[in-house]
Amino acid sequence: VTAGPTVGDVGERALLARLRARVPPPPEDVPVGIGDDAAVAKTPRGALDVLTCDALVEGVHFDRAFVEAAAIGHRALAVNLSDLAAMGALPRLALLSLGLPPALPVEDFDAILGGLLDLAARHRVALVGGNLTRSPGPLFVDVTLVGSVKPRRVLRRGGAKPGDELWVSGSIGAGAAGLAWLRRRADLGGAGEALPPSDAVRDAVAWYLRPQPRVRLGVIVARRRAAVACMDLSDGLADAVTQVAAASGVGAVLDAAALPRHPAALELWPGDGSIDASLAGGDDYELLFAVPARRRRTFLAAVAQAGGVPVTRIGVITPPGTGVVVRDGARERPLPSGYAHFA
Amino acid sequence: VTAGPTVGDVGERALLARLRARVPPPPEDVPVGIGDDAAVAKTPRGALDVLTCDALVEGVHFDRAFVEAAAIGHRALAVNLSDLAAMGALPRLALLSLGLPPALPVEDFDAILGGLLDLAARHRVALVGGNLTRSPGPLFVDVTLVGSVKPRRVLRRGGAKPGDELWVSGSIGAGAAGLAWLRRRADLGGAGEALPPSDAVRDAVAWYLRPQPRVRLGVIVARRRAAVACMDLSDGLADAVTQVAAASGVGAVLDAAALPRHPAALELWPGDGSIDASLAGGDDYELLFAVPARRRRTFLAAVAQAGGVPVTRIGVITPPGTGVVVRDGARERPLPSGYAHFA
Repeated sequence: VTAGPTVGDVGERALLARLRARVPPPPEDVPVGIGDDAAVAKTPRGALDVLTCDALVEGVHFDRAFVEAAAIGHRALAVNLSDLAAMGALPRLALLSLGLPPALPVEDFDAILGGLLDLAARHRVALVGGNLTRSPGPLFVDVTLVGSVKPRRVLRRGGAKPGDELWVSGSIGAGAAGLAWLRRRADLGGAGEALPPSDAVRDAVAWYLRPQPRVRLGVIVARRRAAVACMDLSDGLADAVTQVAAASGVGAVLDAAALPRHPAALELWPGDGSIDASLAGGDDYELLFAVPARRRRTFLAAVAQAGGVPVTRIGVITPPGTGVVVRDGARERPLPSGYAHFA
Repeated sequence: VTAGPTVGDVGERALLARLRARVPPPPEDVPVGIGDDAAVAKTPRGALDVLTCDALVEGVHFDRAFVEAAAIGHRALAVNLSDLAAMGALPRLALLSLGLPPALPVEDFDAILGGLLDLAARHRVALVGGNLTRSPGPLFVDVTLVGSVKPRRVLRRGGAKPGDELWVSGSIGAGAAGLAWLRRRADLGGAGEALPPSDAVRDAVAWYLRPQPRVRLGVIVARRRAAVACMDLSDGLADAVTQVAAASGVGAVLDAAALPRHPAALELWPGDGSIDASLAGGDDYELLFAVPARRRRTFLAAVAQAGGVPVTRIGVITPPGTGVVVRDGARERPLPSGYAHFA
């Protein structure tokens, strides 16, 4: 509820001026930032460029009814930081492409930008360019992120071999649990306000709204060459394991009992339900690694160096043709499928 | 009119597979292309990265009623090529972020991609990554383009000085005339089919649908350091002159009689109307240069080397505080304003 002006009221020039006033001056290695036909940046000597691009669309990736504007900006950058982390790359530069419904309050425009810039500052990422346009439909926030990695340190999805251990950072199911709880409360309307979250749910909601991508972990594991394959969990763990196995031409088996399910997932989906929910749920932005057994010590040293992020061994890579399964006691079954963007 | 499947019918995985089948294998300097968390690319030795990002949104930048799918893909890349050309940068890599309404025919998805890839091939640009998502509203096509330029060859908007000559490539008003004619025909419905375009209009429509950005011209002018400022005409000539003057802290005067108005603009807006229409109309994707008088010979040699693109001297940079005006005989008036994206 706002009585302030909308982006349609103030127009593109005014929005650009607001944006320019908020964006810090570009660092020394960016001779041309926002305000020309394109940005210009020096690339670190001997490093490769790493490039990714991910869009958040209203009604598909977020619901403005329960995702505040600052969280939208945060998440739009976070999903891209997570992709670079999964390559072992240090993020450097971002471009922001916004599609704005004319009825969007200017206050929300400011908050989206603020959420993005706060996270960018924390990772020393410079916003160097982008695009503003009107959208006659949903709000969309499209971020392109450019980072650097030394050759031979790139973490790819392929490269896992039978016998390699599968490790995951943090916990799984937090994103799904946070979203489920926010939806449940929104569905209850005014009555939802009376629904007090447990500490676990509060934590999951915070993670859903402001995930903290594992940038330092990805970069340090890559530097130490402690893993042979990596992918982030943007579409869930089941999807990540499936993609790593496919890209590596191998199978995989996960141990259901070992999965580090977030306590909010256990609370919202009691019993075995939390296994599937945690496997299939997206928005976790943790990292999945394939680590040769002989590199385990190096991997754990890298994790310790990255600081503060626990990792859990959740399974093992199996020979080609064995499929991708989860083992639950004596039972083996195929992995549930991940988030389907067009479903 | 199509009886084929829609993107909602086939889903994200199938679309990704179609895309991968169509995209040529990445060049040698791109060790990781589409299919991982991010793309990885070598940067040319001693060159700077140049980055731009521009989105085309249905209902804002194009109307699917009269812009065929292949032209949408072409234009989405062309607008970005034009931005890099204006920096003097050679384009190398593209990322494509698509927001797809589920009802979009798969045939149109293929054609959008085809239009983009055809233009990319012509400029040796590799499509190395991107994102596919559903859009609950308009189709949007967001392209990020990365190119290279040597230090000290970057063409910026600022840098023009009083006395510098203003030159523009090609003709102006073609984009606006092409669009106006397409709209006029669409408004007539079935009766529009009977509206035969003149050769000039046919040419303008072709330019509107498939503009040819002046990549070679921008790169060669930059290499020879034949201009001190440059900008592309995506939002019209009046806007470009205004922006270059503002960034350079100077004024400018244009000579109305010298403006290389496209014959279709003269046909659609007879008399003086074509001056304003050509100045304010967007979608031209020509380049505006500020050239010191003593560099004129070098500039014209660069133009000759680029081949095939005429240039016209249209005005001169004036001292700070003199404003940005167009001189029409004895009359001087402020430039009409360009395309307003939120209007």
